[in-house]
Amino acid sequence: MVKAHASVLADQVEDFPRWYQDVLDKAQLADNGPVRGTMVIRPYAYGIWERMQAAVDGRIKAAGAENVYLPLFIPQSYLEREAEHVDGFSPELAVVTHAGGKELSEPVVVRPTSETIFGELMAKWVQSYRDLPLLLNQWANVVRWEMRPRTFLRTSEFLWQEGHTAHATREEAAAYARRIHLEVYRSFLEDVLAIPVLMGDKSPAERFAGAVNTMTCEAMMVDGKALQMATSHELGQNFAKAFGIGFTDSEGAVQDCWTTSWGSSTRMLGGLIMSHGDNTGLRLPPAIAPVQLVIVPVRDDGRVLAAAARLREELEEAGVRVKIDERLTTGFGRRVTEWELKGVPLRIEIGPRDLEQGVATLVRRDTGSKAPVTLSETSALIPGLLTEIQHAMFQEAQRRLTDHTVETTDPAEAKEAAQAGFARIRWDLLGEAGERTLNGSAITVRCLQTEDGGLPAPDARPEELFAVVGRSY
Amino acid sequence: MVKAHASVLADQVEDFPRWYQDVLDKAQLADNGPVRGTMVIRPYAYGIWERMQAAVDGRIKAAGAENVYLPLFIPQSYLEREAEHVDGFSPELAVVTHAGGKELSEPVVVRPTSETIFGELMAKWVQSYRDLPLLLNQWANVVRWEMRPRTFLRTSEFLWQEGHTAHATREEAAAYARRIHLEVYRSFLEDVLAIPVLMGDKSPAERFAGAVNTMTCEAMMVDGKALQMATSHELGQNFAKAFGIGFTDSEGAVQDCWTTSWGSSTRMLGGLIMSHGDNTGLRLPPAIAPVQLVIVPVRDDGRVLAAAARLREELEEAGVRVKIDERLTTGFGRRVTEWELKGVPLRIEIGPRDLEQGVATLVRRDTGSKAPVTLSETSALIPGLLTEIQHAMFQEAQRRLTDHTVETTDPAEAKEAAQAGFARIRWDLLGEAGERTLNGSAITVRCLQTEDGGLPAPDARPEELFAVVGRSY
Repeated sequence: MVKAHASVLADQVEDFPRWYQDVLDKAQLADNGPVRGTMVIRPYAYGIWERMQAAVDGRIKAAGAENVYLPLFIPQSYLEREAEHVDGFSPELAVVTHAGGKELSEPVVVRPTSETIFGELMAKWVQSYRDLPLLLNQWANVVRWEMRPRTFLRTSEFLWQEGHTAHATREEAAAYARRIHLEVYRSFLEDVLAIPVLMGDKSPAERFAGAVNTMTCEAMMVDGKALQMATSHELGQNFAKAFGIGFTDSEGAVQDCWTTSWGSSTRMLGGLIMSHGDNTGLRLPPAIAPVQLVIVPVRDDGRVLAAAARLREELEEAGVRVKIDERLTTGFGRRVTEWELKGVPLRIEIGPRDLEQGVATLVRRDTGSKAPVTLSETSALIPGLLTEIQHAMFQEAQRRLTDHTVETTDPAEAKEAAQAGFARIRWDLLGEAGERTLNGSAITVRCLQTEDGGLPAPDARPEELFAVVGRSY
Repeated sequence: MVKAHASVLADQVEDFPRWYQDVLDKAQLADNGPVRGTMVIRPYAYGIWERMQAAVDGRIKAAGAENVYLPLFIPQSYLEREAEHVDGFSPELAVVTHAGGKELSEPVVVRPTSETIFGELMAKWVQSYRDLPLLLNQWANVVRWEMRPRTFLRTSEFLWQEGHTAHATREEAAAYARRIHLEVYRSFLEDVLAIPVLMGDKSPAERFAGAVNTMTCEAMMVDGKALQMATSHELGQNFAKAFGIGFTDSEGAVQDCWTTSWGSSTRMLGGLIMSHGDNTGLRLPPAIAPVQLVIVPVRDDGRVLAAAARLREELEEAGVRVKIDERLTTGFGRRVTEWELKGVPLRIEIGPRDLEQGVATLVRRDTGSKAPVTLSETSALIPGLLTEIQHAMFQEAQRRLTDHTVETTDPAEAKEAAQAGFARIRWDLLGEAGERTLNGSAITVRCLQTEDGGLPAPDARPEELFAVVGRSY
């Protein structure tokens, strides 16, 4: 058995940012684009993104929303309509001034979000209470110029989905945003990506501009820093008033709608890497892994590849995503290193001698454990093992989150604890003044939650809430 | 039974362009975006596009290609590298001159295709014969500024897939391009969209800049005009030489690769509408229809909706995509008109009196035929009927194509025939001079094919080829 070369990557503890960059590179996940801040998503990472999209999209459709596609280009005047918006995005905008071989009479902005066009269209599409709820979502690229780009986490262009919905009542809008947050985002992040997420509301200072409430899913990376994985906003009637999204109710009176918006992006790829990766590379939870099991023949004597093909067939029938590494002119150790880098959950190593005895070696990527398996029993064994790995990876991440979250009772203690993970502190003991102080040390309030870690009720009082604070990406 | 109001749409024969615009509008397929030439793809049309994407993507993956995502922005200098390219696109480019709040030192172009970035990356990713073939594809938005936009057919922004592959030999590249053309495009267009397509090569004048051969799928719309649905290019070694895509062969010698590219776009939505639509609206082939069967209760007496729900469950178990129109406060006739506009292949109308007798009325959108069905037998009947409709719609389009394609023996006759459809003429009787003459009357060579309508062999002589000429979108 050849051990993977740990030296391929920088050490996570010594230099986490460098480790992250090494994984992107060596696992062939991403390249930099020729324009600063842009990225090339390579086939292996894009395959993961396709699975993310499918899982999130399926959940969005199950919640009743339909997909649309809106234009990339937005007239500059649209972004001047809502003042808060311009302040939020202006330095991040990419502006098209020339097209069709001449200067445009009005410059056109490359969408930083499609919010303003959604606003325009929703105002047009909603007339009567019969048109409500209007539940829309879009998968698209957006552009926000980045001065300090980091692949997947902050790039000048990224891929995302943004949902926008309009409802007749505040209660209905609030319930729908909460449903999306729990049934789409939390479910996907925890059940598919095996990333435990803290549920909570953003503090007023961290809230999305124009929102009356922003719910967030906060995850803890291997280095103890937070990554915001998805957010869901209740926009009250603010957005509807700004865009004129009104409806005639069943009594004939005209009312403003109550709207929501919610989004997740290719940033989740960064979160996946930094939640589960180790010094040997990526570790993919089976539910998201494009390849769940790779068969690596040590060498072929004319029978090994044939046996591998039979095994693949059996495994595929059992619903497992399998690949055979047939690059026999490449050294076995090098091939093993590559699959470990790519985080394939299970590996079966098989050579002529194994085959004679009807066995092979089964290696788990999450634990590194190796054990002999009887070939004839393998396909019956694997699906259950994949489920076990999925569960074990979630548990491991959950333990890290728990072990590195300290309950504190004063801001100074919270600041100290936030150097190595998260701190929880009663919101009335921290307050907005305490939050500003922590911000000065690059520590932010990640979310406000109930004592037992749930989403706060709409009428929760400050003294019932707990702030989770930490450093973040 | 209430008949749909034909007056909702302009008449196809009297004003086809107006009919097309009416369908986009009344069937709620698309809106114009706020920036001229851009479009909003509404949920119903986007649902069709999602099914198109899934079907094309599945075929692309079956052909071994992998998806990637490349940046939206391209440095302007990239487009100056290949002179032919600039000439082809320059007036169509949208140029970002400002970003991050200031003027960029080098303007950035919004991709009209990702070809140049593919070229750069392929040069980097291909080193050895072991890296070949490299089979890549991308789904993305692209921008080509349009002076005379028409939704789906020519828009300043559209969605497409572009495949780019690199091979060690000319034969392998040619075979792969042909495989994509037949197994991805023709198979999808004919088997899923029920649109018969003419197979052939583009004439040298119509060939993609830089290609040594361009294969096309040409369809005939209801008005007799041609729509190019997809193209596949053999680029010889031209593209590889321009971008330095070379490889070291197994003997250690450095060679240029042989590359291909191939694409299809949201233009196919326009083709779908114009291939099958009639004066009542869209007609969707069952294989692409987001809803294959709609149950329209005439009114409810407390039992009709319950019966509809039971029927839906049975049909869904039989694999049918079903919707119940529960908008009982909207008039029955209006609801029927809407489903006819949206082209749902089958409709079941059911009221209290029908239910007492255990029957309903089944209406086919393609033929308009109505027949009573016994409710208990319906779910067993529908899957076979959907297959029959799929086949019938293909046959109907095939008949139109055949009936409006005239075999001719001189260019004047071909010109005359091309007013109402296509004309075929021996390529050596037309020639490039004859082609230029036809171009003066807005008639183009749609493709060159063998006598029996196949793709020409690479070494086919001009006198073996037949030109198909026609007006086109």
